[in-house]
Amino acid sequence: MSISPLQDARAAYQPKLPAVFANRDGAFSTSQGEPTQSVADQVKIKAKFAHTYGLPELTFVPGEKGDSDVLKAGVILSGGQAPGGHNVIAGLYDGLKDLNPVSELYGFRGGPSGLLDNDHVLFTDGMIDAYRNTGGFDIIGSGRTKLESEEQFAQVAANCGELGINAVVVIGGDDSNTNACLLAEYFCREAIDIQVIGCPKTIDGDLKNDHIATSFGFDTATKVYSELIGNIQRDANSAKKYWHFVKLMGRSASHIGLECALKTHPNVAIISEEIAAKASTLQDVVTYLADIVCQRAAIGKNFGVALIPEGLIEFIPAIKALIAELNDLLADNAVYFETLDTDDDRLQFVNSHLSAATSQAFSSLPMTIQLQLMADRDPHGNVQVSKIETEKLLVEMVESRLQEWKAKGKYTGKFAAQTHFFGYEGRCAAPSNFDADYCYGLGYTAAALISSGVTGYMSCLQGLTKPAAEWRAGGVPLTMMMNVERRKGHDHPVIKKALVETDSPAFKEFAANRDKWAMDDDYQYPGPIQYFGPSEVCDLTTVTLAIEANQ
Amino acid sequence: MSISPLQDARAAYQPKLPAVFANRDGAFSTSQGEPTQSVADQVKIKAKFAHTYGLPELTFVPGEKGDSDVLKAGVILSGGQAPGGHNVIAGLYDGLKDLNPVSELYGFRGGPSGLLDNDHVLFTDGMIDAYRNTGGFDIIGSGRTKLESEEQFAQVAANCGELGINAVVVIGGDDSNTNACLLAEYFCREAIDIQVIGCPKTIDGDLKNDHIATSFGFDTATKVYSELIGNIQRDANSAKKYWHFVKLMGRSASHIGLECALKTHPNVAIISEEIAAKASTLQDVVTYLADIVCQRAAIGKNFGVALIPEGLIEFIPAIKALIAELNDLLADNAVYFETLDTDDDRLQFVNSHLSAATSQAFSSLPMTIQLQLMADRDPHGNVQVSKIETEKLLVEMVESRLQEWKAKGKYTGKFAAQTHFFGYEGRCAAPSNFDADYCYGLGYTAAALISSGVTGYMSCLQGLTKPAAEWRAGGVPLTMMMNVERRKGHDHPVIKKALVETDSPAFKEFAANRDKWAMDDDYQYPGPIQYFGPSEVCDLTTVTLAIEANQ
Repeated sequence: MSISPLQDARAAYQPKLPAVFANRDGAFSTSQGEPTQSVADQVKIKAKFAHTYGLPELTFVPGEKGDSDVLKAGVILSGGQAPGGHNVIAGLYDGLKDLNPVSELYGFRGGPSGLLDNDHVLFTDGMIDAYRNTGGFDIIGSGRTKLESEEQFAQVAANCGELGINAVVVIGGDDSNTNACLLAEYFCREAIDIQVIGCPKTIDGDLKNDHIATSFGFDTATKVYSELIGNIQRDANSAKKYWHFVKLMGRSASHIGLECALKTHPNVAIISEEIAAKASTLQDVVTYLADIVCQRAAIGKNFGVALIPEGLIEFIPAIKALIAELNDLLADNAVYFETLDTDDDRLQFVNSHLSAATSQAFSSLPMTIQLQLMADRDPHGNVQVSKIETEKLLVEMVESRLQEWKAKGKYTGKFAAQTHFFGYEGRCAAPSNFDADYCYGLGYTAAALISSGVTGYMSCLQGLTKPAAEWRAGGVPLTMMMNVERRKGHDHPVIKKALVETDSPAFKEFAANRDKWAMDDDYQYPGPIQYFGPSEVCDLTTVTLAIEANQ
Repeated sequence: MSISPLQDARAAYQPKLPAVFANRDGAFSTSQGEPTQSVADQVKIKAKFAHTYGLPELTFVPGEKGDSDVLKAGVILSGGQAPGGHNVIAGLYDGLKDLNPVSELYGFRGGPSGLLDNDHVLFTDGMIDAYRNTGGFDIIGSGRTKLESEEQFAQVAANCGELGINAVVVIGGDDSNTNACLLAEYFCREAIDIQVIGCPKTIDGDLKNDHIATSFGFDTATKVYSELIGNIQRDANSAKKYWHFVKLMGRSASHIGLECALKTHPNVAIISEEIAAKASTLQDVVTYLADIVCQRAAIGKNFGVALIPEGLIEFIPAIKALIAELNDLLADNAVYFETLDTDDDRLQFVNSHLSAATSQAFSSLPMTIQLQLMADRDPHGNVQVSKIETEKLLVEMVESRLQEWKAKGKYTGKFAAQTHFFGYEGRCAAPSNFDADYCYGLGYTAAALISSGVTGYMSCLQGLTKPAAEWRAGGVPLTMMMNVERRKGHDHPVIKKALVETDSPAFKEFAANRDKWAMDDDYQYPGPIQYFGPSEVCDLTTVTLAIEANQ
């Protein structure tokens, strides 16, 4: 099987490591900070994690070269793909081998289910080399099985025991790392000698906090989306006849949209968290969009680009309430609802049973969406919000609004729109230089944490806007990132999801510029990710990180 | 206004020229070939183009440096955007200035309409420098006004006369270059001293022939689409749960789909011209797709990637006939049809009036498409074929087919699909090294053709798979590419559109491999366009050109 010229050239790239690991000779030791606390709900978190709570932060510092034991580790990729996953595994593999050449790394296939089914592969140099600096998770695949019950943990212990594995590395998002901590706690409690280390993965960028500056993959994915947004802006500004509504993947937070906006300066970017904070309605969002379309038309610009976060609908309080009520209504009346034959009958049933407030939100939706909400439900009986094509919904509603305004003489432009949805286009891109280095470093640091004998830590690199040699490598206790959240009627200790804060420096930078960008066409064209050119073209990470580092 | 780091670094790139122009000192002359013939319908073409028919091919060869007159030229960008348009203008500008520093270049804004409205700008060094090696047509914009009547030609003559312009360069596709030739013929006939030179532009790749190896922009656009297809393939192969149906821009030919298939090796690629050649029905296409889905499911692969050309529907003979009949039917009965209130009434009317053959094609379409065909018509009353979301139509029909097969026990897999449409993402990308050089060379050659005093030629570079220094620069008579085609009931002399030939070497290469690619996941990941790396990563042009050069 042949590979592309770029993949071939890129295979030779040697990711840069923090100085403490640069000699690759194991000459490091850990510096311990003070005991830590969880970000909130300390009493509850401590009760749940008696053995892994309060651990100190760790930083790797130069030390004596010691003889490492033979390390045997296993690794899983959990959840959605993110650029650089293969480099985490390569860094982990190289780190283990550097510490002791006899060390072994097992990969479990298909995500957490591989750990349960003991579906594994023992990595070799050849396998790892074939995947260095490549995108995708295809080396062992990924999966979305939740690893959270004690029965599952016992099975993991049994399978690891069979292979002689004494450390498991979980590469995943906030939920996967929460479960990694539960697993670590279980092993400690049961006196099972298996360490658990997490690595922060997600293109969504919502796994970050005071210690984890960013999750891996966010840099590359936002660069791919920004390349495309820039190209579309250039097209809009050349053809001058379309509004492009671009939906960006990520339901739980708008970091992707914010970063892409900061990189490309579109005419409009909706940030879900701001919509929620202002308790805006869908009509408010439509008015905001239509207003900018209208103002631009007034100066002869019947074109533009608007970024829409995939999760927008669920951040609009009225729609969120509507969906919750619809879920209950349709679940409670499932049998009767099935007997209704026509759309009219179903609409009448729903309209007559919704509360006044949600009924208004429901009737504000275009008919196609109303029908879609009633028609498609997932296997749990829930309304399939993710199937709503938000970008098309908004185009349709903006168009209606503009027609109303046209009738009143308020608007005299032309509105023609194209829609786009970017997600799968970036999740498996080959990692940027930043993500290639960051991921390799996270994997290498995970190996160092394993050799240090600790458990319940997340691999951590800090100072990310500096050259890789200056990055600080260490470990952050997983419990430190936790708070208690109510899910499905129960309190759960979970790693706190990082939403876009409307008082954050990155959001403020966006907010300070958006009115200008709306009218002035300050379009930026970032172009495709470069691997070989000048450092300022190839090595810079996200605008979000740069702004945060300047604070 | 700031520019991105890549745009900044890329601004310094100096495109490579053919050796004959490399010294930029005007030391060249033309070598004339034999008188030429049009590719078909010689008598009719000659009658229409009495003054510009039969011109010899021209090749630039080293010569004495002479003193060039002051040249005053105008340029327009015509039709859809293609990467590199700005470099054609930069090459033309530099060529004119190299020949005589007092020469001037005017840009007419918004495409052909700028020539008619005399909406112009006189280019300066600063303006040109700001757009070197950038994507888009935003330097002067583009437009789709047809320049084809004698009244228009007289207006162009008047406007050029006012500015003292003695040459017009038309950067456009087959139709724009046909009209450029009509304009050249008009000027000759009327003894108006204005030359006309064409440049071959279109991402679709359908302006090519024995002399024009490729149109500019095709290389860059297909590289952007292939980057994204590769990323999606990696995602499909990592998640192993989706079929991705990717529609690619281009209604008139499938060169884009063929080139992307040769670059990325997807599981399926539909080539419209093959569908037409085999007189396949839509059901045949669905069967072909469903068969591959089914065969892959049988070996446990419930995922894959299929490329679909935007123009597919119109290449299916039965659908083409249906659309023609629908257009006539709805036009002839427009008033009555408007009185029909319900979808049922409209469907009944259409079904009862279509011929037996087309009625079958109509009823084979999903209901949503049937309704769409009746509902949306363009300002000329025609069915809006371009609004049909072919990729979703095929997903829906494949899904139905698989359900039938499941009921019969023939298929036991899972089918979940994601759809994509790539077009605007690539039309305005910054040009690849190849397109940057090719476009700059086309513009520079156009300047040389102007200084040689000829008219009715297309700027031409040959030997494109070799380094730029070895390219042969010259001019090809526009009449030489023409044949007569029947359009709207009349014979028209037009530049022959190049469709994918099923006996061409590129198609045969694809056909020889597609069965293997369908099953084996030989996915290629080309990655993003690179500008600074090793030559084999940055400088290679299309697979199509490479295959054709090897013949």
